[in-house]
Amino acid sequence: MPISERVKKSMEEGSWIRRMFEEGNLLKKQYGEENVFDLSLGNPIMEPPPEFNKELKKLADEPIAGMHRYMENAGYAETRAAVAKQLSVEAGIEFTQDDIIMTCGAAGAINVVLKTLLNREDEVIIFAPYFAEFINYIENHDGVARVLPTDDRFIPRLDVLEDSIGAKTRAVLINYPNNPSGAVYSEDFLHRLGELLSAKSKEIGRQIFLINDEAYSSLVYDGLKCPHIWSHYRQSITVTSHSKDLALPGERIGYIVVHPGISEHKELVDGMIHCNRISGFVNAPALMQRLVTNLQDVTVSIPEYQRKRDLLYDNLTGMGYSIVKPKGAFYLFPESPLENDVDFIKELHKQRVLVVPGSGFGSPGYFRISYCTDDRTIEGALEVFRKVAQKFNLG
Amino acid sequence: MPISERVKKSMEEGSWIRRMFEEGNLLKKQYGEENVFDLSLGNPIMEPPPEFNKELKKLADEPIAGMHRYMENAGYAETRAAVAKQLSVEAGIEFTQDDIIMTCGAAGAINVVLKTLLNREDEVIIFAPYFAEFINYIENHDGVARVLPTDDRFIPRLDVLEDSIGAKTRAVLINYPNNPSGAVYSEDFLHRLGELLSAKSKEIGRQIFLINDEAYSSLVYDGLKCPHIWSHYRQSITVTSHSKDLALPGERIGYIVVHPGISEHKELVDGMIHCNRISGFVNAPALMQRLVTNLQDVTVSIPEYQRKRDLLYDNLTGMGYSIVKPKGAFYLFPESPLENDVDFIKELHKQRVLVVPGSGFGSPGYFRISYCTDDRTIEGALEVFRKVAQKFNLG
Repeated sequence: MPISERVKKSMEEGSWIRRMFEEGNLLKKQYGEENVFDLSLGNPIMEPPPEFNKELKKLADEPIAGMHRYMENAGYAETRAAVAKQLSVEAGIEFTQDDIIMTCGAAGAINVVLKTLLNREDEVIIFAPYFAEFINYIENHDGVARVLPTDDRFIPRLDVLEDSIGAKTRAVLINYPNNPSGAVYSEDFLHRLGELLSAKSKEIGRQIFLINDEAYSSLVYDGLKCPHIWSHYRQSITVTSHSKDLALPGERIGYIVVHPGISEHKELVDGMIHCNRISGFVNAPALMQRLVTNLQDVTVSIPEYQRKRDLLYDNLTGMGYSIVKPKGAFYLFPESPLENDVDFIKELHKQRVLVVPGSGFGSPGYFRISYCTDDRTIEGALEVFRKVAQKFNLG
Repeated sequence: MPISERVKKSMEEGSWIRRMFEEGNLLKKQYGEENVFDLSLGNPIMEPPPEFNKELKKLADEPIAGMHRYMENAGYAETRAAVAKQLSVEAGIEFTQDDIIMTCGAAGAINVVLKTLLNREDEVIIFAPYFAEFINYIENHDGVARVLPTDDRFIPRLDVLEDSIGAKTRAVLINYPNNPSGAVYSEDFLHRLGELLSAKSKEIGRQIFLINDEAYSSLVYDGLKCPHIWSHYRQSITVTSHSKDLALPGERIGYIVVHPGISEHKELVDGMIHCNRISGFVNAPALMQRLVTNLQDVTVSIPEYQRKRDLLYDNLTGMGYSIVKPKGAFYLFPESPLENDVDFIKELHKQRVLVVPGSGFGSPGYFRISYCTDDRTIEGALEVFRKVAQKFNLG
């Protein structure tokens, strides 16, 4: 076997998502791209905001000497300072460049954090529905993913968390606005989570780290402001990226934020910088670091995403689909009308609508709709959803 | 302890290199940057060739819709096809885009390859002097690095290799033009290496993979052409980047080349694409992929590097330093005039010349000079080397 047993296992476990993706490609070939309504991918169709291209043109017209060379593995001091400044404004606590490590996207960031923290067989607690890659990321570093449930609003069950923390618990990994549910956690929830983790850390005699993936934090709706974890728990590490707020997912630009008050701050940050290097990331792409430096307060159009969410949510609930209204990200996570979500997904596939079954996120009985796509696709899909709703006697 | 035991160990083992780096920074602060002669870093001072900026301007002036989105995890088909075309011309065997995976630099590429191949405790054979990160990369994926010697020209000892291959051997990892020695392997050597690995694979009943890091393959001198491994061994995987040929180390753009005739080609390539995704690289930076597509036959000025090599080599050998003349890369690897290379390095530090001791590459008794820097630095360093040569009665 040319590939390792672990990789083979990881491929097999993810293989039915892959199979669906391949099925989708077959559908597109057979019926033409315009006749397939693909709501399966989290690949934003929006272009970066115009400010991005202005910065790019500036650097292309007047290149800076050495701008493509290696820099410190943590990233440019200037970029980290700009990120810290913006976060300080948003969060009301003071960050400096020493709290920031620029990374190859949020995926790179999480892997750097987990590599730094995990001893073999350390447990990382996650909550279903979860971003499916979390399992791979934890296992990359010989950690064990422990999956706990959320409630009927997709909020982590703190009572279960309390009973589940033990001697092997190294970290709790949360993600809000959540992929796939769109749930945004409240200040009150975060406060209670922080209290719980503080108490439990004392109890087990070891600091439990809270890792927060807030890649979608700019994408919240109805005038909501996405709360940060920093005022609620000091042993916290945030990972995020500019993939969504600046629509740059292919460019792999993100960063780690270490709480300024975290214990053994320097040792931890040095460890992460080391891991950024030895994992093979080395540093976040140089040009992108420069480009985002002056774009820290810029985002794509949030109302446009909200409009798409409402278009889908209003229509689908009107047809009888049961959905917890998402407050952020660009996903809906409706209940599957069939108990078996994979069967339901196959029904949609037959009608050339592509979505992802909840089983792919540890939550069978649901399915994920991604609406970072064009209206034509959304409207085409809605027609199919209506037909299917009638077939299964919804509403 | 906030960081894992493994990471702590890796940091401690590399810590004296780091200490020297920090000492260097102190020197620069104390004496001013211009009074410190830093030959320690492999960070090319050259700018990318002018064609690069033309491509960048073109994309900045006329952005392509969707150019910052995710693409296939293997990279753009167009970019992979351009790489394959250029390699086919160079190597005289036929590559297609299916043999190429775009990666976040060569460091990303090696990590993807090793993650794909290694089961826990599989051995990867490397040869001293080796690029120090190889040890980290192998251990990232729970492999075991087995270090074998080279001869007095820094060419791997095939007799020792023959005796060292066993049931745990999964891969042999070579690197030429070599960092730190500058050695370039000959067609004849590669042929013998290929024969040996074929025979040994048969003997142990398992295919041994040959991984070749050829990041410096464009940087060869005296009219030499750097030979490729492909015509000598089919179970071969090459990793490389545009960090050196296009002077883009900070941009993290590289690729994997899988031999078209490798056994179970598709399974292996699919495994690597999967690992590129789950390791957190996801894909090579999108903009850089587009930029290098039309620059496959362009490089920085090779004669300029050769001139710097000659300037250092001629002067240092004239002073009595003993050096195997490097045929490629941008390093010299002279013998240390003191048996203890770290003591010698400290002597140089006192006089504000920064180089890396051979111990950092598994070869005590040597030191590495990096000459991808400006002439002023080289000339300042040469003065110090002359004084030190006199002190130690060289020549």
